[in-house]
Amino acid sequence: MSAHTDRLLLGPGPSNPYPEATEALSRPVLGHLDPDYLALMADIADQLRVVFGTSNELTLPVSGTGSAGMEACLASLLQPGEKAIVGVNGFFGERLCEVASRGGAEVVRVTAPWGHRLPPEELLDAQRANPDARLLAVVAAETSTGVRNDVSALTSLADTETLLLVDAVTALGGSELRVDAWRIDACYSVSQKCLGAPPGLAPVTLSPRAVEVMRARTVPVRSFYLDLGLLYEYYLAPTHRYHHTASSTLAYALYAGLARLLDEGKEVVWARHAMVGGKLQEALVKRGFGLIAEAGGRLAQLTATTLPDGLDEAPLRRMLLERYGIEVGGGLGEFAGRAWRIGLMGHAARERSVVSLLGAVDELIG
Amino acid sequence: MSAHTDRLLLGPGPSNPYPEATEALSRPVLGHLDPDYLALMADIADQLRVVFGTSNELTLPVSGTGSAGMEACLASLLQPGEKAIVGVNGFFGERLCEVASRGGAEVVRVTAPWGHRLPPEELLDAQRANPDARLLAVVAAETSTGVRNDVSALTSLADTETLLLVDAVTALGGSELRVDAWRIDACYSVSQKCLGAPPGLAPVTLSPRAVEVMRARTVPVRSFYLDLGLLYEYYLAPTHRYHHTASSTLAYALYAGLARLLDEGKEVVWARHAMVGGKLQEALVKRGFGLIAEAGGRLAQLTATTLPDGLDEAPLRRMLLERYGIEVGGGLGEFAGRAWRIGLMGHAARERSVVSLLGAVDELIG
Repeated sequence: MSAHTDRLLLGPGPSNPYPEATEALSRPVLGHLDPDYLALMADIADQLRVVFGTSNELTLPVSGTGSAGMEACLASLLQPGEKAIVGVNGFFGERLCEVASRGGAEVVRVTAPWGHRLPPEELLDAQRANPDARLLAVVAAETSTGVRNDVSALTSLADTETLLLVDAVTALGGSELRVDAWRIDACYSVSQKCLGAPPGLAPVTLSPRAVEVMRARTVPVRSFYLDLGLLYEYYLAPTHRYHHTASSTLAYALYAGLARLLDEGKEVVWARHAMVGGKLQEALVKRGFGLIAEAGGRLAQLTATTLPDGLDEAPLRRMLLERYGIEVGGGLGEFAGRAWRIGLMGHAARERSVVSLLGAVDELIG
Repeated sequence: MSAHTDRLLLGPGPSNPYPEATEALSRPVLGHLDPDYLALMADIADQLRVVFGTSNELTLPVSGTGSAGMEACLASLLQPGEKAIVGVNGFFGERLCEVASRGGAEVVRVTAPWGHRLPPEELLDAQRANPDARLLAVVAAETSTGVRNDVSALTSLADTETLLLVDAVTALGGSELRVDAWRIDACYSVSQKCLGAPPGLAPVTLSPRAVEVMRARTVPVRSFYLDLGLLYEYYLAPTHRYHHTASSTLAYALYAGLARLLDEGKEVVWARHAMVGGKLQEALVKRGFGLIAEAGGRLAQLTATTLPDGLDEAPLRRMLLERYGIEVGGGLGEFAGRAWRIGLMGHAARERSVVSLLGAVDELIG
């Protein structure tokens, strides 16, 4: 560990943090019960409510990454033996199934081919066939394929006994997501993608009815660390009951990233992501790359792309990293070895990123 | 959030990081599969092996705080219905019981009064009475009382079928701890106490026989996020199978803290902690404060102390924070409302911290 490796991070996350977020990391460390730290957490909860589009009281960052946010929601809402309907059209839908079933839930899968959107009607049908399902989970932005699933078509779940759980890991801050308007009951994301902070925190929000479900549990949450009820008591309840030694360092950085996002305006930031992602996709197609996500269901912040015939993804990706310091991600699952995943997220969602990447690609495949 | 709050952190942790650790936070973010990041994690594993005193291959930092490290060990080693013997003489012994029983284990408690050490013979007797116990867990340094439990008296467990699990949250880096010499099978700690880095990572190490136990499981670990088998495959196995988006930011800081510690030399750092803690305890007693930990079993890095008659702990503690920016912790459990917990850990384990605190206390209680 000598020279500071400096990457342009255009993979599936982390993205390059906003400079303000990096600067905030060097603020002096606060204790996890310091009044200034607890006030900071209240401010972050307010920022997150705006970004999530919610008035949910239980809104907080879990001390972990996106998978910790996912597990916190599933573990806190599902009791052993309860049923979870999961939409699966990519790697992270599969992960939802795995985490839920490890936790003891019975998983009902609703699938679509990778690259295709989940048909909302099939999800709603699955709920009608399983009205006792505790929750229905869907990934808003599939990081493995670049597919945008239509969460806004699932609002009628709120009229059933089934909670709507949404993975917004790649969605939050990068494209439209409206927790209250879309009647989402539980939603989690990450600090290091479209929010423009370093990795380490997983923002989570629960609707009042999700909180009721959690409070009505008869079996305690199996995980102590990821029990959202305990995290609520620590961060948000007036007693601030000690739970774990949360990191003020990461909190400061998340605050700074969110402040920058909200200064720009969340709709403006969505539009910036849409603009640069559109430019990239157009330029890729012109060069013979393929888009894995079907038309009409493409994310702008994450593009999964197959390479033109005759190009070998791994050595080319390694050259991008070694020669130009540009990171893109490899394919996952059935696209491993034959695709890239290109993120334009947060501070890196800039035209400069697009021209840098295209310039490098042209030089390499030229 | 305007002016940068700057504390002298003399509570039960976090402590003030080494300046090198703070500086390292501002290094550019790396992707979680970047070759430079994976090389950094290999370097950190090597540093941790020295600090833990082990040659265990499975040595890595969990992406979470100490409670995540605790839960990762318990969840990865215990299958539902298995028996765990837990030594309980403070808050964190209780937490071990809670985490184990939430996870579905049957807990056998061996208790001692808060402030007293756990009698090793009683722990060994409990194992003889429960030879089928999967593990026996004990807190090396009880952060709630300042008691040092004698882990080195439990080496004979290695000749039984019961694994020895040690909570080294406050111990690691601050006082003698020898994983291999003491035949410890599983041990976890934190970045933010005697290692001198900010919070967010929980170093963990498993002995080969603990790894065997984990690999022989018939039921998958209930937690995906805290499954040490998956974390091994990600960090240490040559395939580096993606698991979660680990934070290079926290890793750089941990590396820098550990480098500073190892430059000084771990025995030298232990001695520094012993020296300043001894000075503090002597000075406290002279002022009429009481030491909660029994003689012969006192930690130097963490002192739990009752206040002289007539002094009200909470307002005095608040004044320390507000007037001097010095944080000490309040009592936990039966000592809530009538004790302080004073940490002298890592970079803050200096004579300057002792004189600062004593000067402030003298000024306040006059």
